[in-house]
Parts: sequence; C-alpha cells; structure tokens
Amino acid sequence: MTLTTISTNLSHGGVQGVYSHASTSTNTDMTFSVFVPPHEDGETLPIIWYLSGLTCTHANVTDKGEFREACTRLGVILIAPDTSPRGENVPDDPDKSWDFGLGAGFYVDATQAPFDKYYKMCTYLEKELPELIVSSFPVDMSRQSIMGHSMGGHGALTIGLRNSDRFKSVSAFAPIVSPLNCPWGEKALTGYIGPDKSNWREYDACALIEDGARVSDLLVDQGSKDNFLEEQLKPELLKSACETAGQKLTLRMQEGYDHSYYFISTFMADHIEWHAKKLKA
Amino acid sequence: MTLTTISTNLSHGGVQGVYSHASTSTNTDMTFSVFVPPHEDGETLPIIWYLSGLTCTHANVTDKGEFREACTRLGVILIAPDTSPRGENVPDDPDKSWDFGLGAGFYVDATQAPFDKYYKMCTYLEKELPELIVSSFPVDMSRQSIMGHSMGGHGALTIGLRNSDRFKSVSAFAPIVSPLNCPWGEKALTGYIGPDKSNWREYDACALIEDGARVSDLLVDQGSKDNFLEEQLKPELLKSACETAGQKLTLRMQEGYDHSYYFISTFMADHIEWHAKKLKA
Repeated sequence: MTLTTISTNLSHGGVQGVYSHASTSTNTDMTFSVFVPPHEDGETLPIIWYLSGLTCTHANVTDKGEFREACTRLGVILIAPDTSPRGENVPDDPDKSWDFGLGAGFYVDATQAPFDKYYKMCTYLEKELPELIVSSFPVDMSRQSIMGHSMGGHGALTIGLRNSDRFKSVSAFAPIVSPLNCPWGEKALTGYIGPDKSNWREYDACALIEDGARVSDLLVDQGSKDNFLEEQLKPELLKSACETAGQKLTLRMQEGYDHSYYFISTFMADHIEWHAKKLKA
Repeated sequence: MTLTTISTNLSHGGVQGVYSHASTSTNTDMTFSVFVPPHEDGETLPIIWYLSGLTCTHANVTDKGEFREACTRLGVILIAPDTSPRGENVPDDPDKSWDFGLGAGFYVDATQAPFDKYYKMCTYLEKELPELIVSSFPVDMSRQSIMGHSMGGHGALTIGLRNSDRFKSVSAFAPIVSPLNCPWGEKALTGYIGPDKSNWREYDACALIEDGARVSDLLVDQGSKDNFLEEQLKPELLKSACETAGQKLTLRMQEGYDHSYYFISTFMADHIEWHAKKLKA
C-alpha cells in the first residue's frame, strides 16, 4: 500500500498531514488527514478517529476542529477520513442532493447497484485504513478511540458498537442515532442497502444496542438549537435504548448551540480529554 | 449607520457574528466578523483587532484562527475586518493577480485612479469601523489592541504606530515589515499611492519607527520555514529599526513553521494572552 503525501504543516508542535492512497475497498483514491503530536523517536501514540458529517471531507475538521492543542497536550494522534468515495466514475445521488452519494457514504458497505462497487466505507474504515495507518504512522493500535459529528457521529457509534474490542471509548457531536428512524437514514440506507430493514440494524446505533452490542462508555454532546435535532438526530432514542439496555451514556444537551463547527470546536477539547483518560487508563 | 447581521453562532460560550454595512469610506458594502465572549449585562470588554493577509476575508481567521477559547477565557472581543473593498464596480489588479486589488488593500488610502474611489482601508479602519463598532457592540474603546498576519501584520504595525494613543499593544504573525523594501510593497504602494516613495513612509512600519513613531510594546512571531521570509517579510529590518530607535520588540523565530493558519493558530492564544495582560493592566 502506497501513501502519497499531499501536504504537511507544523502546527501546535506536531505535524498536520494530508495523505491519499488508492483504496481497494472503494476502488478510488481516498484522502485523509492525520495529526501527529510531538513525541520521542520510537514512541507510539494512541489514536482518536474522527468521522465527519454530510458534505464534509477530511478538511472541515482539519481546518475548523480546534483539536490540535489538546492532541499535543495529551499526546494523541487524530485521524480524519473522508465521508465517501469520490471521483468521476463514482455514482452520485441522481438528484445531486447533499444527503446521499458523494460526501454522504454513511459508513456502510453498499449492497445495491451501482453503489456497491464503490461505497464500501465500512470495510474501508474497519479494515483497510487501519492497516495503512499502522504501517505509516507511530500509532499504538491497542489504544484507539472513535468520535464523529452528525452522519460521522452515526459512523462512530456504529463502528464503535460493532468493534468494542478495538475502541476504548466512543463519543459523538450531534449524531444521527437511528437511521431506521429519520429521513436521512431512510434515504441513505434504502439506497445503499436496499429496502429490507432487517439489514439496516448493524448500521443503526440504537438497534445495535437493542441487539446486545455494548461499549465501555459513550459521550454525546447535542446542541439545543440544532436545526436537525427533532427531525433527524433524536438523541432521546439513544437515551432510551441505553437506559433499557443498561449501556452507560453521558448525553449533554448544550443550550443554544447549533449543528456547526462553532459547536464542535467548543467541545472538541472536552472530548479529546475524555478519550485520553480512557486511552491512558 | 446600519449594520446587517449575516450570521451569529454560539461558540465557546460567546457569539461569533458576521456583519455587513454600507461603507462611506470604500463606497462598497463591507463585511467583518466580531466575537463577543460571555459577559454581564451592561459590561464593556476590551477589543483586539485582527487584520488579515493577502487573499483573505474575515472568514479565514474566523474559521481557522482558534482564538475563541482564549477570548472567552480572558474576556476579550476580537474583530476581523475584510482586506479590501469588494464588488463588481471595484477595480482589481489588471493582471488579476492575488497581490494587488481585491483581497489586497494593504490598509492604505489610495490616491491613484481608479483605486482612490474605493481603496480607503486606512480611513475605514482608523475612523469608520471603530465608530460603527462602538455603537453596536459592548466595547470599551479605551482598551484596544491590534494584531495581524502578513499584509495584515503590516496593517497592524502601521496603524498601531500611527495611533499609539489608541492601542495598548501591537503584535503580528509573519508581517510585511517594510513595503519600501519588498516586491509586494513595491507593487501595491506604487499602484495605490504612486511612485513618490516619500508618501509611502506612513505605510511602512520600519520607516514610521525611523521617523519617530513608537508603541508601548511589539510582539512578532515569524516561522523559519515561511516561503515569503527572505524576499517579502524580512523581520531583520524591523529588528534593526527597533534597535536603532530604542523601540521595544519581542521577535520570536518559530522553528519549522510556515506562513499558514497552522502557524497562526499555534501561537494565537499566546498573542491574545499577551494583549490581554496589557489591556487589563
């Protein structure tokens, strides 16, 4: 596997890099960013994976996430993958809307043509990218956590729940907690996975918890002025699923905050500190 | 004077706003951003002005500057103006290059046609915008500081030096310290002010210091891997002018840093803390 370096910049004492590679999962080139804080030669560091929301690439959080100061202070690597395959050949939403297709991979392995040839974000994140990371960066793969925003919060919750042996902790900003129960999820999972909803449950955080999946700890921040709160995000469904199942959850409603990076950046250091405690316990 | 609110977002406990107004200085609409940290009703707060570099608008630092955490912690307002007038009627560089015209106002009052009708960034920042700010935000105008990046560092230094009674402190990231002695300055000041270089001295930090202008304190951070360091920025000229004149200056060469917001954001909290000490002394 060959990694192409697109850019590296010194920032907060560490190296913020952007890289690309030819992905065998998605049959496209994939781009991602990695921040490696200062460290001793030969030292390996714990990782936090950050999964982004609809329309985003690696660049949104890399530019606006305000994570580097905390990563340097706590000695944690942050990896930000893209949200879908991209390229001229990659099929997009027929209506070109922003909630399906390019920038909207929903962290699933598509089974429906024509998407199944490219939209394999689940395999990409669970198998391919970790192998590339371990061969290219000073990472301690025994200490990983995962977080994400909105669609990426859905990704973090579901990947975290399906791989509880891999992740020490899971957190999210304004996540889609149940694609089975919101219009974004209905559209995306019908398109990628097909109409049989029994196949959706492995990609639905609430259903995974109902079906027995557990993680050691969950932290969720949700802005009270988020435009998508009532129709799409529905944190009460996660709260209810966790209460019923006895899954530990800290759900914080953040008064007055919206869905933007102004919200995410406000609580980013909190999340990194929370993960770092688990990663270093 | 009427202010139009383009957007407001809660962030780090305060309000990040973007506003526009019809400017009488530039004969265009002008856009700027203001971050107001949480404060008591009726309380007024000190201000830091942040002037941006070539090609930038208010948005670059607002997105990538990582200033809000420090502003909230220290109770300081940050204002980020645009770098030039903009609009269909506004004359641009005949060659459409990025170092003159739109996004490159150099914080001067142009005297040369056709630029003199619009490019009045000096009057805009020294007179018009402060009057608008005082009537619209909870500011304590007796406590102001100024900083900037690159062309905006030039703006901060020269506006600071010409208005030492207004600013408690002046700082810059990778500033153009002498338009008289670099290609960017040659091009811009010839275009805006004309070829008589005696008219440039009020827009040249080194010349202002040579001619007797002083500020209480200067802080400059400069990355050692900045692509523009040797040809355009030349911090040694500022160091020499300050030494000769007895002007206090802290010039920090930051090993390995470049000209980008990855550099600026690394040292932003440092600068805000430094200014806040002076503003609250």
